[in-house]
Amino acid sequence: MDLRKLLRPSSIAVIGANDKNGFGKSTCVNLLNSPLKDHIYFVNPGREQVFGKKCYDKIANVPEKIDMCVIILNKKLVPQAIEEAAQAGCQAAVVYASGYGETGDRESEEALRELCRKHDMAVMGTNCAGFINNLDGIFAFGMLVNREPQAGNIAIISQSGKICLNMMQIRHMNYSYLISSGNSTCIHVEDYLEYLIHDEETKVIGLYLEGIKDPEKFTRVMALAARKRKPIVVMKVGKTAKGSALAASHTGSLAGSDKAFHAVMQKFGAIRVDDIEELAEMCHLLSVIPMLPPKPSLCAMCLSGGETGICADMGTLMGLAYPEPAPETAQKLKELLPGYATVANPLDMSATLAHDGARYAQVIQAFMDDPAVGLVICGQTVLQHHEVQDVIYPMSDGMVMAAREKKKPIVVMSFFNSSRDEVIRQKLESEGVPILPATGGGFKLLKYLMDFVNYDPDAHTLELAIPNPTGKQRIALSERESKQELKKYGVKIPEEYVAADLEQLEKLDIQFPAAAKIVSPDILHKSDVGGVKLNIQNLEELKAAFGEVMDNAKRHCPDARIDGVLINRMLPPGVEFIVGVNSDPQFGPMVLCGLGGVFVEVFQDAALYPVPLGREEALGMIRSLKGYKLLAGYRGGKEGDVEALAELVVQIAAYAAANKDTLAELDINPVFVYPKGEGAAIADALIVKLQ
Amino acid sequence: MDLRKLLRPSSIAVIGANDKNGFGKSTCVNLLNSPLKDHIYFVNPGREQVFGKKCYDKIANVPEKIDMCVIILNKKLVPQAIEEAAQAGCQAAVVYASGYGETGDRESEEALRELCRKHDMAVMGTNCAGFINNLDGIFAFGMLVNREPQAGNIAIISQSGKICLNMMQIRHMNYSYLISSGNSTCIHVEDYLEYLIHDEETKVIGLYLEGIKDPEKFTRVMALAARKRKPIVVMKVGKTAKGSALAASHTGSLAGSDKAFHAVMQKFGAIRVDDIEELAEMCHLLSVIPMLPPKPSLCAMCLSGGETGICADMGTLMGLAYPEPAPETAQKLKELLPGYATVANPLDMSATLAHDGARYAQVIQAFMDDPAVGLVICGQTVLQHHEVQDVIYPMSDGMVMAAREKKKPIVVMSFFNSSRDEVIRQKLESEGVPILPATGGGFKLLKYLMDFVNYDPDAHTLELAIPNPTGKQRIALSERESKQELKKYGVKIPEEYVAADLEQLEKLDIQFPAAAKIVSPDILHKSDVGGVKLNIQNLEELKAAFGEVMDNAKRHCPDARIDGVLINRMLPPGVEFIVGVNSDPQFGPMVLCGLGGVFVEVFQDAALYPVPLGREEALGMIRSLKGYKLLAGYRGGKEGDVEALAELVVQIAAYAAANKDTLAELDINPVFVYPKGEGAAIADALIVKLQ
Repeated sequence: MDLRKLLRPSSIAVIGANDKNGFGKSTCVNLLNSPLKDHIYFVNPGREQVFGKKCYDKIANVPEKIDMCVIILNKKLVPQAIEEAAQAGCQAAVVYASGYGETGDRESEEALRELCRKHDMAVMGTNCAGFINNLDGIFAFGMLVNREPQAGNIAIISQSGKICLNMMQIRHMNYSYLISSGNSTCIHVEDYLEYLIHDEETKVIGLYLEGIKDPEKFTRVMALAARKRKPIVVMKVGKTAKGSALAASHTGSLAGSDKAFHAVMQKFGAIRVDDIEELAEMCHLLSVIPMLPPKPSLCAMCLSGGETGICADMGTLMGLAYPEPAPETAQKLKELLPGYATVANPLDMSATLAHDGARYAQVIQAFMDDPAVGLVICGQTVLQHHEVQDVIYPMSDGMVMAAREKKKPIVVMSFFNSSRDEVIRQKLESEGVPILPATGGGFKLLKYLMDFVNYDPDAHTLELAIPNPTGKQRIALSERESKQELKKYGVKIPEEYVAADLEQLEKLDIQFPAAAKIVSPDILHKSDVGGVKLNIQNLEELKAAFGEVMDNAKRHCPDARIDGVLINRMLPPGVEFIVGVNSDPQFGPMVLCGLGGVFVEVFQDAALYPVPLGREEALGMIRSLKGYKLLAGYRGGKEGDVEALAELVVQIAAYAAANKDTLAELDINPVFVYPKGEGAAIADALIVKLQ
Repeated sequence: MDLRKLLRPSSIAVIGANDKNGFGKSTCVNLLNSPLKDHIYFVNPGREQVFGKKCYDKIANVPEKIDMCVIILNKKLVPQAIEEAAQAGCQAAVVYASGYGETGDRESEEALRELCRKHDMAVMGTNCAGFINNLDGIFAFGMLVNREPQAGNIAIISQSGKICLNMMQIRHMNYSYLISSGNSTCIHVEDYLEYLIHDEETKVIGLYLEGIKDPEKFTRVMALAARKRKPIVVMKVGKTAKGSALAASHTGSLAGSDKAFHAVMQKFGAIRVDDIEELAEMCHLLSVIPMLPPKPSLCAMCLSGGETGICADMGTLMGLAYPEPAPETAQKLKELLPGYATVANPLDMSATLAHDGARYAQVIQAFMDDPAVGLVICGQTVLQHHEVQDVIYPMSDGMVMAAREKKKPIVVMSFFNSSRDEVIRQKLESEGVPILPATGGGFKLLKYLMDFVNYDPDAHTLELAIPNPTGKQRIALSERESKQELKKYGVKIPEEYVAADLEQLEKLDIQFPAAAKIVSPDILHKSDVGGVKLNIQNLEELKAAFGEVMDNAKRHCPDARIDGVLINRMLPPGVEFIVGVNSDPQFGPMVLCGLGGVFVEVFQDAALYPVPLGREEALGMIRSLKGYKLLAGYRGGKEGDVEALAELVVQIAAYAAANKDTLAELDINPVFVYPKGEGAAIADALIVKLQ
């Protein structure tokens, strides 16, 4: 669907134009201020005029062909308005009306969707606030916009109209579009996203999300953005039960599991932020800097020891690197700085150079020329009411001089927020030097930025295994069946045998110590019925164990079908991991990997990642665990076979991807990881399928 | 020492007054603008006038008795200036000069300290920027203050002068004092703190700290503040090695262990924030709200679903509670809200009431009257350029109406930062309704506030065991000696015996399974030399083990003194904990408690707390662990004996407090915690003393 006809129309009709407080009045006032105002038409059979402008009784009578209409009518009147608009040749509409899916009326929503499909009409809404197009100065928006259009390079898609309005009010942010997508009855968030990824005017896309509707398309467009390296900054509510419930009732979105969503964002290299303020500031940072840092490392230069210490702490705590200045850099700095200053990174440069813009610029340039440095932080608080004798004037002169060389990004770290001096801000940001929010927030933005710089689309499998579940009944496979399934995908299964009776048992070539477990499709929790015997030392013990296990099973589960007893050698102990799969209803199977036992459950130290995935992604998961220390030569111990564990994760992911429509759950617990070169072995496996 | 003569002088001399850019000019200009200007005198033998004001050649010739002088001279000239000031009857001074302890010249620092002691002179500095007293309008400050004095209730003590200046520039914050303490050569941070805790004009104290000098006094004044419930907000750098190093070179502070400092803050109920911006905003919040919330719970009311969802997520993630509205509250809300709104907390009230201040106030009042609610959040973004038709006008009317009832605090949650509308801010904050920073930051402040509300000084032992180490040599006690030491403090030691030979061994009444360990003051790592045998089942095995352990010890450590073999019953396994003590050089012994094994080391899940401590504090430590789940009836398992573990922690703390000057280290690893009512037992202990 071509969204240009919706977002960049040449003529607009307002259906139901009126001057009552609310969306009607606001839309009319917003559009009358537009450069397009001679091509705006009001339609309302009950009015002669609205705000002094003629009202037509119906869209058919408007003297110009209408590209797009804004429908300010309640739900019942919307279908007819769409019909009439389509008849008049209009191909796009904004529908504000609410009371559809978000309140449970999915029928009206489906009917509207069908109508739009029939007329090939691009409809924004329902339950939305319209959009703001700053490129053409069109505010087809239901809340009063108290700001002149100003073309920028940030595009916002928001499931909340209020948030669009608030963001438009942030005067230092300049947008191409702000889109209030509402319920996404016809055009989905994914569609706007696709349009904006291709849009040359848009440099960064901000997404305020409550949930998505079309995971298939979402995946496709996220992959497109990842390959184009177009940054998408995402704030999604629904991390908590209260938040999810509100998201569902607000735009009728299916929130899904937040952890699954987060893992999908990581896969596609989207920048997921924690807060709506971070969404704004992160878009702003990406909008202003003229290039990405060539490497993910910092330098910081401040006028005071206190500020330098704060930069040192905050950056380091955020996991960011301050490389030591190279010898040439150190030499240059020594020549520029007063004798008592200590050359270091972060640098306490003292206040001496703050009065001399040109020399201040030379300090920035010295750092910029250091090949180890990716970005320069100039520490200085910028608040309102600076006077011209304030050091920020020569300092900002210096920043501008250095920025004009366009070598590496420069940012200002302001130690306090509160209102800013807009003259200084404008001077700096128009030259590509953003003022960041105060340090906690500012360094968090830099961490997001450096993660984006580190992301390599070629190291990620840019697809998902979106499921089409065919059944709902959960069927558990036995341990042996589960292992046999996995074997087909290359998973190494330790040798094991099933004996139905003692005669078969005696013929087997068992290695001791061994384990014996009951095999029955009707007994899932084998231990609970005394169906497991471990540490069996010899054939005599094994025979006894066989009898015991069979007896226990028959006594506890008299009706269970019993196939025999599974016997295998006890695995030597290693570092205990678990590998599992959960299936997200929207994004499909997710592999989980973490240390076994209480580690996963008490410390929640598990990595989750959507399938399919490759070796690099599996290694990334494993390295992201706190428990990775136990595999990385912890306390002088041996390194674990990380490669073998990664290989297992890849095999499990391949199995999950191939069985995406039927796999409900998979658990391999425990996996023993042995020292480097000695592999990993699975001790138990359970697959649950949907049928 | 009386700091009034320093901070509230009636006459001031500027020694070395001049008009050169820098501290000289700034101090003169700052003081000439003071209401006290007729009692300001400039002293400089080389000048006739500075800024048109007469210069005296020496302080003795000033025609008024001088209370306080600001010395703008370099280090060499300071002692003579102090002498002359003292001769002239002046009893207080600010010394800007640097180059003392922070650059390693401890000698000059000590000489100055001695001089001040001799003359009983209250001296601020060295290496400081002076102070700002807004109560009397005195800016004895070395950087130009571009703001009129305005009396407020926030006091700031900062080891960075620049940070004082920046905070003064935040126009919505109103201060009693801003003090740049510098090196604290004579007057320490602890002294200012004591003064301000007693100061009636000061409601909240903000501390920017690089380190403290007098832990004894610090403890005393922190306890005083805790008992008075006067909030102290602390930002301390030095969380990382880079940050610590910078703090040390800046004001010559000893940073100590950040974790120990943090634990001390918890004990005294100080509000430790993570960022300098949080320091400002937390002080501001406490400054504006007219009372503390009566209980630590929230309600939130927003105009849009998106904003309500964000409040739900952010508050819940921060661990804050939104109680369900009581039936009466729900009834009142139902009557006030439009029919389609759902009564809940947080509440999406829709925009309808936003145009009606009186009804908006009634919604706030309904929540305020709910006994489960401690504080009301009004969600609305306040940015610059609001016009009078904007809903913020009626909304803020409503907030003011409700606030005037002075029942519970009301705060505004603004979803974005950026510059604020100062008219609205002034209107609200003058009535006790603060505008919080955007949600991530705002909810963090509320978490700090609720922690302060929850803090009960009576549940804490408001003292520390500040050490005076007498020796430096580390002496390790044997396991048996260590256990015997602890036994004196009530620690239950499982029955154990030492046998020097087989004959003694046979006479003992050993319970099996048993453990045998070599006893030697020269062998600390018993396992490493084969000096430990576990799981011994009977006397025969025990005899064999005895021989083996003795042989191994003699073979590996031919010169070791061997006292025999320690024998005890193997403890039944329980949940494995460790309890230990580290001694902080400033704050003394700190008890550490956490899950044993890799848990502490890989997951760093350990609680640290200064001694002495009581049962409530020990329980607090244990409950703060993630691993506490394992004692709290995890997965349907049995509850652990938390009381027994807490008792052990208290005993260990008592031992540590009594031995504060000699205890270097203590490790009890493992402690087995058994099911509720079955106690806890220590399996090993190691004490290292200083001699």
